[in-house]
Formats: sequence, C-alpha cells, structure tokens
Amino acid sequence: MNYTKLQAAFFRLRNNRAFELFVVAIILFSALVIGAKTYDIPADVLTLIGWMDTAITLFFLLEVSVRFIGEPEKKRFFLNAWNTFDTLIVVISLIPVEDSEMALIGRLIRIFRVLRMVSIIPELRLLLNSLIKALPQLGYVILLMFIIFYIYAAVGASFFGVINEVLWGDISIAMLTLFRVMTFEDWTDVMYETMEVYPFSWIFYLSFIFLTTFAFLNMVIGIVVSVMEGEHAQEAREQALTDGTPTIESLHLEIRELKELIKAKL
Amino acid sequence: MNYTKLQAAFFRLRNNRAFELFVVAIILFSALVIGAKTYDIPADVLTLIGWMDTAITLFFLLEVSVRFIGEPEKKRFFLNAWNTFDTLIVVISLIPVEDSEMALIGRLIRIFRVLRMVSIIPELRLLLNSLIKALPQLGYVILLMFIIFYIYAAVGASFFGVINEVLWGDISIAMLTLFRVMTFEDWTDVMYETMEVYPFSWIFYLSFIFLTTFAFLNMVIGIVVSVMEGEHAQEAREQALTDGTPTIESLHLEIRELKELIKAKL
Amino acid sequence: MNYTKLQAAFFRLRNNRAFELFVVAIILFSALVIGAKTYDIPADVLTLIGWMDTAITLFFLLEVSVRFIGEPEKKRFFLNAWNTFDTLIVVISLIPVEDSEMALIGRLIRIFRVLRMVSIIPELRLLLNSLIKALPQLGYVILLMFIIFYIYAAVGASFFGVINEVLWGDISIAMLTLFRVMTFEDWTDVMYETMEVYPFSWIFYLSFIFLTTFAFLNMVIGIVVSVMEGEHAQEAREQALTDGTPTIESLHLEIRELKELIKAKL
Amino acid sequence: MNYTKLQAAFFRLRNNRAFELFVVAIILFSALVIGAKTYDIPADVLTLIGWMDTAITLFFLLEVSVRFIGEPEKKRFFLNAWNTFDTLIVVISLIPVEDSEMALIGRLIRIFRVLRMVSIIPELRLLLNSLIKALPQLGYVILLMFIIFYIYAAVGASFFGVINEVLWGDISIAMLTLFRVMTFEDWTDVMYETMEVYPFSWIFYLSFIFLTTFAFLNMVIGIVVSVMEGEHAQEAREQALTDGTPTIESLHLEIRELKELIKAKL
Repeated sequence: MNYTKLQAAFFRLRNNRAFELFVVAIILFSALVIGAKTYDIPADVLTLIGWMDTAITLFFLLEVSVRFIGEPEKKRFFLNAWNTFDTLIVVISLIPVEDSEMALIGRLIRIFRVLRMVSIIPELRLLLNSLIKALPQLGYVILLMFIIFYIYAAVGASFFGVINEVLWGDISIAMLTLFRVMTFEDWTDVMYETMEVYPFSWIFYLSFIFLTTFAFLNMVIGIVVSVMEGEHAQEAREQALTDGTPTIESLHLEIRELKELIKAKL
Repeated sequence: MNYTKLQAAFFRLRNNRAFELFVVAIILFSALVIGAKTYDIPADVLTLIGWMDTAITLFFLLEVSVRFIGEPEKKRFFLNAWNTFDTLIVVISLIPVEDSEMALIGRLIRIFRVLRMVSIIPELRLLLNSLIKALPQLGYVILLMFIIFYIYAAVGASFFGVINEVLWGDISIAMLTLFRVMTFEDWTDVMYETMEVYPFSWIFYLSFIFLTTFAFLNMVIGIVVSVMEGEHAQEAREQALTDGTPTIESLHLEIRELKELIKAKL
Repeated sequence: MNYTKLQAAFFRLRNNRAFELFVVAIILFSALVIGAKTYDIPADVLTLIGWMDTAITLFFLLEVSVRFIGEPEKKRFFLNAWNTFDTLIVVISLIPVEDSEMALIGRLIRIFRVLRMVSIIPELRLLLNSLIKALPQLGYVILLMFIIFYIYAAVGASFFGVINEVLWGDISIAMLTLFRVMTFEDWTDVMYETMEVYPFSWIFYLSFIFLTTFAFLNMVIGIVVSVMEGEHAQEAREQALTDGTPTIESLHLEIRELKELIKAKL
Repeated sequence: MNYTKLQAAFFRLRNNRAFELFVVAIILFSALVIGAKTYDIPADVLTLIGWMDTAITLFFLLEVSVRFIGEPEKKRFFLNAWNTFDTLIVVISLIPVEDSEMALIGRLIRIFRVLRMVSIIPELRLLLNSLIKALPQLGYVILLMFIIFYIYAAVGASFFGVINEVLWGDISIAMLTLFRVMTFEDWTDVMYETMEVYPFSWIFYLSFIFLTTFAFLNMVIGIVVSVMEGEHAQEAREQALTDGTPTIESLHLEIRELKELIKAKL
C-alpha cells in the first residue's frame, strides 16, 4: 500500500513539467562543469568542481530511481532504449576511478551525460529517431560507396604504396587517404606526388571524385525524396481526418447514392 | 494647424518614390565614401571625405526626422524595428568621437549605415524577414548540432589538450577547431597530429564529420521542405481565389443540388 | 531574280542538317587547333597551324555570309543575339594582329570561336537561355549577398588592414579575401592571424560564414523551387492538351449538362 | 539427355539462394585476401595467400561455368553485360603473369573481382543501372561544362603558361588545374601567383567559379527533378493499379452512366 502510493507520487513527479525543466537545468549545469574543467583553473575551484560532480552524479541516481519506481510496469522500463541508456550512464559514473587509464573512461562517461539532454527533450528524441530511421533506406548506396572505396583503396595501396608509405601504406590507411581526397582536403598534393611516378594517375583521382560525388548526390537526393514523401503521406492523412472537405472518394459515394435514388424512384 | 499641415506634407514626401530613390542614392554614396576611406588617399581628399561624411550624417538626421514627423501616430513609429534601427544608427553617428578607441566604434556605425539599404528597399526587408522566420523552425536541429559540437569539443579538449594547446586548449577553442574540421579546412593536419598519440583518433574525426554532415543535410532539407510547403499553400490559396475553375468542393455542392432537385421533382 | 534564287539556295543550305554537322566539325577542329597551340610544337607544325587558322577564319566568314544571304528578312538577322555574336567573332578575327599586345586579344578571339558551338547547337542555346533567365529571379538575393560582402569587407579593411596589407589592404582586396573565406580556402590561416590582435575576431568570420552560407542556400532553394514550378506548370499544360483524360473541369461541365437534362425532362 | 539433365540441375543451382550467398561469401573472402596483401606480411602467409588466390580463381571459373551451362539459351548469356563482365574477369585472371609489368595488370584484375559483388546482388545492379541511366539526361549540361572548361583552359594556358609551367603548361594540364580551382583546393595560391603579373586575373577565377558552380547546381537540380518525376509517375501508376479507390476517370464514367440511365428512363 505504502509502495503503491510512493509509485503513484513518483509517476506524477516524473511527468511534472517543472521536474523535467529542473532535470534539464541540472544537465546543462553538468555540461558547464565539464566545459569548465578544460580550462586552467586554480586547485580550490577544481576541488569545488569535484564536489559538484559528485552532487550531480547523486542527483542523476536519484532521478533515475524516481523514474524507475514511478514506472507502473517495471518490465517496460528497460524496453525503452533511452531509459537503458540513462541507467547505464548513471550506474557507470558511480564506479570510483582512480588510476589514470580508467580516469579517461570516467571522464568520457561524464561527457556522455550531456547526451541525456536528448533523452529528456522529446523533440530531440524524435529528431534523432527520424535520422536513424533514414539510414537503412540508404543501406545499398552506402554499400556501393564502400565497394568503390575498397576497390580504389586496393588499387591505391598496390600501386602507390611504394611512393608514400604514410598515405598508401596499407588498405585501411589508403581508405582514410581516399576519404581525404573526397573532402577535397589538399587532394592535389596527394595527386601531384603520384603523378611524378605514374603520369596518368590523375585518371584514378578524377574518376574516384566523380564516382563518390555522384553516389553522395544520389544519397542526398534519396533522403530528400523519402522526406518529401513522408511529408506528403502525412498531409494526405491529415486531410483524410478533416471530414468537412470532400474527397474524390466521397464524390464517388454521392454519385452512387444518386444513381440508386434515380433507379428506385423511376 | 501649422504642424498638421507639415505632418501631412512630410507624410506625402515619405511615400514619394523620387524621395525614396534619392535616399537610396545617398546611402549608395555613403557606402562608396566608406569604401574610399580604406584606400591610401592624399590628405586633402581625406578632408573632403570628412566633410562629405558630416553632410551624409546631417542628411540622414533630416530624413529620419521627416519620417518621424510624417508619421500620423508617433507611438507606432518605434514599434517598427527598422525605424528604431534607422534612428539608432543616425543618433549614434551624431556623437563626436575623437580618441582612437571610440573612433573604431564610430567607424563601425558609419559602415552599418549601408544596412539602411535593407530598411529602405521593401523587397530586401521581405527577404531578410523570411530568412529570420525560417530560423526557429530549425531550432531543434541547431540545438542537436550544438550538443554534438559540445560533446566532441569536451572529448577533444580532454584528450588532445596536451598534444596541441593552440587547437584543443579549452572547450571554446576546441569548438572552433571542430568548426574548422566541419568545413574540411586542413582537417587532416589536425587529425594526423593526434593520430601520432592516439592511432584510433580518426574514428573521432570521421564520426564527427558524418554526424555534422548528416545533421546539416537535414537542416537544408528542412528548409527546402518548409519553403516548398509555403509555396504549395500559397498556390492552393491562389487557386481558391480564382473562382472560375471548379474544385472538388464545388463538384460536391453541385451533386448535392442535383440530388435535391431529383428528390423534389420525383 | 538571280539573287532571290541564291538566297533561297542559301536558306536551304543553312537549314541543312549535313551543313550544320559540318560546321560543328569545323568548330571542333578549330578547338583542337587552339589546344594544340598550347603545347611545345616544332616550327613547321606551327606554320601548318597558322595556315589552318586562316582556312578556318575564311570558312567561318563564308558560313556567316551564307547565313546572312540566306536570311529572307535582313533586319531580323541582327535582332538574334547569337547571329550578332557569330558575326562579331568572325569579323574581329579577320583583323590582322602583329604586335604582341594585340596578338593576345587576337588569341582570345580565336578561343571564343569555340563558343560558336553554343550558338550552333539548339539544345545548348536553350540551356544557356534558361540559365540566364534564372538570374533576375535571384536578383534581390544577389543584392543582399553583395551588401553583406560590402559591410564585412569595410569592417575587415578598417580593422585588419594594418595586420595584413596583402589580404585586407583596401575594400576590393578585402572582398576577394572574404570570397576566399566563403569557399573555406585556408580561411583559418586568415582567422588565426587576426585573432592574435583581436582575440574575438572569430565572431567576424563565423557570422560571415553563417550569413553567406544561409543566403547561398536560399539562392539554391530559390532556383530549385522556380525550376520545379516551371516543370509543374508545363506538366499541367501538357495534361490540358491531352483531351482524352477527363479533368475536374470536364466533370463540372457534365454534371451541369445532367442538371439541365433533368430540369428539361421532368 | 544427360546434358539436358545437367543443365536443368545447374539452372536450379544458379537460382539457389544458398548458392548465391556462398558466392557472395567467396567474393568477400577474395576482397579480404586483396586487402591482406597490402600489409607487410611474413613470407609463409604470402604463400598461403597465393594458394587461396588460386583456389578463388578456380572457384570463380567453376561458378561462371555453372551459370553458362545452366543457361537454357546460350545466345542470351552474353547479351547480359554483367555475364560478359564476369566471364572476362574470370578468364583474364586465369592467364599466368610472371614479369613485373604484367603482374600489375594481374593484380588489377584480381581487385576488379570485388566488383562481381555488384553483378551478384540484384539491388546493387539496379542502383548502378539507375545511376548510368541518369547520365544521358545530363548530357548537354556536361557538354556545356566541358566547353566552359576548354575555353578557360585555352585562355589559362595562353596567358599563364609562362608564369607557371607546372600548372598552366599546356591545355590538358590547365584543365586539371581548373578542376582543382573548381574544388576550391588551394585555388587562391594559383590566383595570387597569376595576379602578380596580371592584377585583374581574379576576374578569370571568379567568373570560372561562378559559371561552373551554377552549371553544377543546374546538373544537381536536373537530377533531383528527374528523380522526383520518376517517383511521381510510379506513384500514379501504383494508384491506378489499386482499383478500389476511385479516380477522376471513374467518376467520369459513372456520371456518363447516370446520364444514360436518366435518358433511358425518362
């Protein structure tokens, strides 16, 4: 009985707008603390920041507990990926880290707490979900692009490996170099170097740029078209909901009625 | 009585096309004077330019006064942001500036006078308003992008701060460096430097480039879709206005009439 | 009589497909001759090329004459901008140029002969016309962009002129530097230099990049929307032409007829 | 009789899903072998890789034979460009290559075997086909772009050839340099060099950038529009197939029926 009352109270708290804003404020504050740590700060301020850090960690533990206890069905809690993410971040940041190796990972976890902003604000969650949903549609274009990269990297590593070990040493380094060429970052320096040995190697670079630009354009257009279609479908659904305005379908029904009427009366 | 007549005269003057063109010409001339000052010019021409500058300032004072006196309702005058902007620019440029510190601000004010072009030409005002109106729609994408930047900057400042103080010294410098990476400006130099210490730091850069490019594309597509929808809605509104061409709704009404007719007659 | 026959013959020749292809072939050949001249070639080949050049010039003179004589209404000939362009290119390339100053202009004219390709092939003429037609629609965006450039160049030349004379010496050089910043070409080098004197000058660069990117995006979207609308309008026109498929308008007419029928019969 | 049975068995095998997956696995494995060869590996692993290579080659020979024998109509086999490509790749990789010159070509052929991935997976084949199909629509824009490049390269080689032999030596080098300018790769270095001799040569670069950017934008928009139209047409076709929902055409037919009914009955 007592627990049920607590759960109901926490459920109300969880859905309280003021509580949500307070959590966002704490996340923002934790982000500022993380930012502050990157500056050269006096030792006493650093100690203060250390205390704040602990306070934030404890608050987050409290907040996740409230969410968990407030959940009517405990099983559903971890089915939500965001809840799992929140819990993991909070639990891992509880582990005390002392030695330098682990301290870096502890720091990373503290930084990832800023990502909780996304899990708290529903609009950001929606945005990220739609971004992730767009990816599989582009699956085959990404696969094609990877094949292009792999083939060019294999050719590059085979032929240019002896010219510049740093850029074309093995196939993974060659893929990184090709990504650089794709972003047009000092790509002519890379090209001029190999053109001294193979004067026709410009064909390699230009064909690669054309292929990847074309495939990239296709990807972008793919996203545009799918987004547009989504908007279109939603619009159509909305129009269907507003029953006031007639559609071709309703006209069809009315003409049919009219026909029945004439048939019956005459 | 005398004032009312003056106001009416100024109101007519204000809306006069020739007066508007003359003001545009003076603004253009002031822009040329500003441009001329950046060249190495003999001292006597500089004195001449100084006189011109004073003349332009006085003309603008006169013009804003005409606008203010010509306004029938004085309260509404400052509700228009452009009027407030015009008045501020003119009033501040009246303050005599002598010492070098203030002289720079005086110069800036004179340069911002060119922006009056936007406040005078209605088409430019409309364009800027539509640009500003498009921003809030993109609010959440910009927030998401800022979170991405902040997290990567925190990671960058924490890990790479000891490698290169100039690029990753603190979180604000790190964000500037990340913006540079996003524009592909010598980003490989930044990467190769950190790869010497952390060989897998290319994951940091590549994931950042993919995330920001993807988010940026989403922003662009967001603008395109919202602009398209605006055009679409306007088109629909225009078609509704041209009563001649029938719509599905008018067909609906006619069929209903027909039904009533048959019901009544038979 | 004799002239009329000649004119008719030339008119036929002018519209002959084989003649057109032959002219295209000659233009292609003249392009190759121009290209060949940029290589290091032995003196005797150079003499040969000189002869070829004269032959091409004479052929073009002949061809333009055929076009002019073949034109039934002489006045209309020069109303077509492409005919005027063709005639000018041919006439100017007839002037013998000997001294080095004029020789460069003579060379330029010979190069511009390649542009005759556009004036001969109707599809390219259409494409260029549509490109030129799209420009005025973007007039105000271009004006706004120019104002942004001018203001930033004035600020840049005023404040950074003493830091780097080569990049910010006067307002025109500053505009060129800003164009460079807009294309992201080593823009951080430009920024880091001024940040040593004015640590907050990154605001200048970042705000400039945001404004111009945003305005540029707007321009692109403007073109996309106008092209789409053009396609849309053309589609609608085409559908209206195909009388077989019924439209809402034809349904409207039929329902009206039906109403008249019922009214009359009952 | 025996052969017919074999052919039928091979036809079944060819269309077997498991067989297809196995071939994809072998291609993936061959890609990994190619990638492994670019690393510094001990001699005995290299021998192993050599053996694997032979095994892969023999497997591919077997696989293409199965496909060929499984084909009911032998003539149709080579009409499919992908089959011809597969056969060529397999046959050429059978030729033993020993001397260093030919060894490079042998390597290239082995790398191109990765492209067989595209010929095996139907979705990738479709994607590549649609990319290739989009090209001719853009034919005239590409031609126009080539003319722009050729004219600017001719001007560049004529005027700047004496300034920098490496960048503007002849027309083909000049075209490569212009492509570099178009990708904004250190284009200001190229410009500043020529501006020392011809102070107004910035006009050359800026006009070139504007023209090519504009033409490129046009190309991209062209692709977007054509893709959108394709989607549109497909949507219309799909809607026509779903007979349940009425279209304007079906309304038209029903109204006609109604008219006939009234005419007959009254």
